[in-house]
Parts: sequence; structure tokens; C-alpha cells
Amino acid sequence: MNQPTEPKADKSGVRRHNLSLVLRTVAEAGETTRAAVAARVGLTRPAVSSLVEQLLDLGFLVESGKTFSGQAGRPGTVLKPADTGPAGLGVEINVDYVTVRVVDLTGTDRVRRTERLDNREADAAGVLARAAGIAAEALDEAAERRLAPAGAALALPGLVSGGTVRQAPNLGWNEVPAEALFAQGLTTLRPATTGLPVTSDNEANMAALAELWSGSLGDIRTFLHLTGEIGVGGAIVVHGELLRGAHGFAGEIGHLVVDAEGPRCRCGSRGCLEQYAGQAALLASAGATGVPDLARRAQTGEPRAVTALAEAGRMLGRALSGAVNLLDPEAVVLGGIYPQLMPWLTPALTEELSARVVSGLWTPDAGRLRPASAATDASRGAAALVLHDVLADPLNYAPQ
Amino acid sequence: MNQPTEPKADKSGVRRHNLSLVLRTVAEAGETTRAAVAARVGLTRPAVSSLVEQLLDLGFLVESGKTFSGQAGRPGTVLKPADTGPAGLGVEINVDYVTVRVVDLTGTDRVRRTERLDNREADAAGVLARAAGIAAEALDEAAERRLAPAGAALALPGLVSGGTVRQAPNLGWNEVPAEALFAQGLTTLRPATTGLPVTSDNEANMAALAELWSGSLGDIRTFLHLTGEIGVGGAIVVHGELLRGAHGFAGEIGHLVVDAEGPRCRCGSRGCLEQYAGQAALLASAGATGVPDLARRAQTGEPRAVTALAEAGRMLGRALSGAVNLLDPEAVVLGGIYPQLMPWLTPALTEELSARVVSGLWTPDAGRLRPASAATDASRGAAALVLHDVLADPLNYAPQ
Repeated sequence: MNQPTEPKADKSGVRRHNLSLVLRTVAEAGETTRAAVAARVGLTRPAVSSLVEQLLDLGFLVESGKTFSGQAGRPGTVLKPADTGPAGLGVEINVDYVTVRVVDLTGTDRVRRTERLDNREADAAGVLARAAGIAAEALDEAAERRLAPAGAALALPGLVSGGTVRQAPNLGWNEVPAEALFAQGLTTLRPATTGLPVTSDNEANMAALAELWSGSLGDIRTFLHLTGEIGVGGAIVVHGELLRGAHGFAGEIGHLVVDAEGPRCRCGSRGCLEQYAGQAALLASAGATGVPDLARRAQTGEPRAVTALAEAGRMLGRALSGAVNLLDPEAVVLGGIYPQLMPWLTPALTEELSARVVSGLWTPDAGRLRPASAATDASRGAAALVLHDVLADPLNYAPQ
Repeated sequence: MNQPTEPKADKSGVRRHNLSLVLRTVAEAGETTRAAVAARVGLTRPAVSSLVEQLLDLGFLVESGKTFSGQAGRPGTVLKPADTGPAGLGVEINVDYVTVRVVDLTGTDRVRRTERLDNREADAAGVLARAAGIAAEALDEAAERRLAPAGAALALPGLVSGGTVRQAPNLGWNEVPAEALFAQGLTTLRPATTGLPVTSDNEANMAALAELWSGSLGDIRTFLHLTGEIGVGGAIVVHGELLRGAHGFAGEIGHLVVDAEGPRCRCGSRGCLEQYAGQAALLASAGATGVPDLARRAQTGEPRAVTALAEAGRMLGRALSGAVNLLDPEAVVLGGIYPQLMPWLTPALTEELSARVVSGLWTPDAGRLRPASAATDASRGAAALVLHDVLADPLNYAPQ
């Protein structure tokens, strides 16, 4: 049999692992004590104290003088993640806006900037240079708060792999080296950022991570996440991890076929979900000028708007029934433009799921379909991704 | 942020982990030496020798007197997995047959029995009792070869969770406690098997594991596996692990909708892939009496057969384009009845994939579509699953 092997387990990696474990435990709790950490992770008090001292020295944790009586033993000094030091820089570049955030280790937004731009009008290098400019200003503001970026993550509306946007039909981008162009723009403006790690991913993946880490899903760790924008983005989270596929292109729910002979899609196929439930298709079909206008028309019962939303809901249900049959998620989360439209999308959508999902778990009242939480978006997910890497191996991000 | 925590890493688990690592390394190599194992896993020679001694004592490994000059140093005694001792018992129960296998730690089939039965004619308890009877005889034969089962695994054609077949439309089963009924049948016939661990899963999942572990896929570790039988089973393997979903129901490719207004399916939906590309639908549409008859008719160019196969290929392509857009696999493997029909299925199938897969990686000549290897099936995967558990933690299966 062909069995994989992995690196040996030995002591050299154990302390590094346990530093991460302690830091993550404090970050998850928000405020806690050494005793509570020891009880949670199953290490001795002295071992936890030694790990905590190192995390305090390196600036990942802070302690306050006040004492705190947790559930696990006698009162102790309160430990918290630092709100200075390493931070995540998240940058979302979408078709009609750029959003930049700086998030600290406590998970709090410290800087947020959004600019409305028509990114289809500029060339890719220009868009990434503009995004770098917004990021540079955000980092200046962060520096005043004693926050330094541990890395930057870009959320992009297309197929992304190896730091490059392979294809973003709604932006008209092909083979754009987004990470390199962004890093070049940022280091030109702020030379101190030279060498800053920059990563990138599909914006739907980033939005799904934001949802996962927001805590709003409770215990749910396996879900589909749809983002209705100009395009329909999709992401798959399995046991708390993004399913990226062999080349990083997984999750393209917007291009599931709902009518094989339907209208041409920008991807080259026909009858993709995006042609029925994407923002442009939906507004055109409803005769609405924007999403708020569409919601207003539906609210007043305007037949064309209600019919367009029901048809979009039916097509969402048809595509999602396939995705649910394949992936058996605990929930489907609808984000982007969908949460505000759910009253008119949901009936036809759940009817399709109920009729077509084999496992019979998706009855109309099963509550497995839910709106994305308002606080989460792709730029937040991008920043959280950087912080996730810091928490996974703090020594790698320790000050020199 | 809501971060997961996992158990601390400590020394107590390290030796157990390394025993597994050494055993898997020997099993993967087939024949090797202590020196080659040490080079491969990165442990010292004395550490490997100590682990090997324990595995020899417990009967998981054997050594032969002959020496063997590997690539990693001087010749040494040859180490091999034992062909006696712990074995995997795999049992596939399908609509029209039962197959039982006993596979040893070297990965070799030692006993194999197949009975053609019409399992739709008997009640579920009767079918499972008959399967237990075949398994009991296979274990007698295995015992003569000094093989003892480490566990049994059942491969079943339906939705399986918690040891129970929730629904198997093609068998007419609902909520059948398959593991308990099988174990009861086996212990009645062979009381010595009392307490034997019994697991169960969908037959498509088991067939995919067999394909994965056969080595025939080379480095491919992320793939979709379709099994054409009376129904169309599907399984998803991601980075070498089955994707089971939240309730164990993932992979139902046979129930992807290819025509929303198509014929009723036994699952309750309409226009499922199974209604076009399942064995029964395909034979009816081609006017053939069986799969060999269908292949013969297609070979002679009979228009009805060729048209039916092209239509099935087109529907397979339509469903698979959705699955590929969602999951971005390295390959799609077609098993069951499909390998012998691929010459007539493939053209329309790859045309659909090429037109509809967003990433553009699925061009007609990309070679990402492949037949399942002849040696693999669900009973083999089931037996391999038991052995996988033994390799993952041999101490758990050591003689008392």
C-alpha cells in the first residue's frame, strides 16, 4: 500500500507548538489567567507560566494588574492578547471598490478605509497601485497606534493561484501578478515594508474565513459560503479549513450550470448560476437600478421584482442542491447582496433544496440556510488570515 | 477570534506516533532496511532499531536473513510487513452481489469470495446475515493462513452514518442498522469474533480509497471517483483523505441535477444524473440487455447504443463540470461499468468539461479523466480501511 509519511514528532517542535497553543487559547478567550490556560490545554502550571513569560517578552500578550476569578481555580493576573505589535493588513479589491483594514491580535478592527472605484476602467497595475496607496495610508495610521503589519493578504474576485489572478472575468483580468504588483506599489511608497509577506486568495474564500472566525456560526465548521456581488463567489469550508482544491480554484459555485441551454456566461459556458443570481442579471431581470432599489420594489410587492427574486432563488436552490449533495455541509451562508434579499429569495430556494437534496436534512424549516453576519467581509477575512498565521507560529513573527 | 485548540504535543504520544511512522514506511516500501527507514523518517539508527524490535516482537514486521543493499547506506537485514497476524476484512454488499476479502499487512489479497445474489429480493436482515455467513467462511480460510481480522468494514450502496444505512434507494433500505446486524450474524456463527470492530461506509467511498491506496494514481491525492452501478456512486478525496461531509453524506454525484425538468428519480428529485448515466437508465435507453451487450452493440456502431452512450457522456460531463468547478480535483476517475464504455462516453463528456470548467484546465486532451484501475473495488477499499487503522496506531491492534 502507498502510505504517506510525515515528519517525525520530536521535542524540538514541541515548545514552538505549545507557544502557539497558549497564544491561541488566550486569543480565543479574550481575557484569561495562567491557571485557566493550563486547565484548558492540559499542560502544567509551570510549563504554561514559562510559555506565557516568553509570549509577554515578545509582545504577543499583555497582563494587567487586576485579578480575575475564572472557572478553573484561584484568581490570577489577567492575560490578554496585545493590542499593539503584530497586526493583519487585509485588502479587498472588488469590481467597484477597494477596502483596506488593519486588525490587531485581539481581533479588533483598528483602521478601515473603503474607496468606491470603478476598477473595470483602470488597468490592473493601476488598480493594484491605488490599493497599495490606500494600504500605505492605513499603515501610517496603524503605526500611530503602535501596530506593525505581520503580513498583508489580498482578497480578489477571480481565480487566484501562486500570487497571480489567473482569470477575473468581471474585472477583465488575465494572468495579473497581483501580489508582486501590490508589494511593489507598497514598498515604493513605504520602503520599510520591504520583505513584508504578501498572500492572496479569492475574495469568497476570504469572506468565508471571516465568517468562520467571527464566531457567529457557533459550532458550525463545515459550510458553503456564497457571496453575491457582480459575480457570484463561492467558498467551501470543511472542518474549519478552506477547501482550495488541487490548483486553488475550488468553490466556483457561480459557475454551476442551472440550465444547460441558458444564456452565455463571461466564463465561456452557458446557463451558469451567475447569469440568474448575480447582481447584474438580477437587477436587469427585475428592472431595478441597484440593490436597495430592488429591495424597495420587492417590499412594495412589485410583480417584476418579486418574480425576478423568486427565479433567482429557484436557480440558487438548484445549484446549491448539487453543492449540498456533493459536500454535505452543516449550513449554507449567503453573503454580499443576498442577506437583505432573503425574504424574497428563500421560499423558492428552500423548496428546491428540500426536493433535491438526497439526505433529506434540508427541509424548508431546517434553518441550515443563513445570512452572513453583517460584520464580516473579505477584507476582514484577509486580515484574519494574516493573524491566523501569527497565532499558528508566533516565533516566526517575533521581533528580531 | 474563535480559534480551535488541539491536544498538547508531548513525549507520551511520540513513541506511539513513531511506531506507526516506521510501520507505514516499511509497508510503503514493501521491503527495506533499518538504515533506509532511518534515512526516510529522519530518526537516528538506534531509535529506529528500537522501534523495529518492538514491531517485530508484536508480529507486525518480519525480517529475513538475506541482506539488501538499498540506496541509503550499507546492506542490512531485510524488513517486510508480516503476511500473518492482523488482516483487514472487507465486505461489499451491492444490489446484485456480495464480495468478501481478507487482505494482509503487505496489501495482498489472501481470500476473496463473491456471490451473485439479488439483494432486492431479500429483507435487509437476511442480506446482512448472508454476508456474515460468507465472511465467516472467509475468516476460516484466513485462519488457516495464520491471519486474524483486526476489524471488518462494510461497503454499502447508500447513505451511511453511525453504522446505519439511512437510505439505499436501489436496495429499498431505510434506517437499517447494518453494522449491528452484520456483527450479530458473524458472532453467532463464529463466537471468537465477538468484539471485533466493525465499521461501514458508502461503497463509492470505499472504492475511492481502494483506488487511492492502489498506487495506480501516482502522486494524485485530490480526485473525484464515480462508480457506475445500478446507481451512480460518487466519492471525493482531498489531499489523500475522504471528504465525508458534516453527516457522512458527501459525494452524491449521482444526484446532481442535469435537467431540472427531467424524469423522476428514486431519491424524490427530478433529472438526476443517475437517470441518464446509471446502469439501468443507460441499458434501457440503448435497448441492451447488459453492459457486455451494450459494449458489443457500440463496437459494431449500432446507432441506438452509440447515441445512448453519447447522451450519458454528455450528462456525465454536465454534472462533472459542476463538481470540478466546486472541488478543483487533479483527476476524475470513472469506475464500475464505465471503464469498458469510455471510448463512447468520453468524447461528449470531455467536450462538456472543456466548455464548462472555469479554470480552463480541463481541455479534451488534458488526461485528467481516467478509468479506475482494474484491481480496485469497494471490498478491497473496505479491507484497506481496516489496515489503514492498524498502520495508523499499531499498538491499538497489538496481541494482548
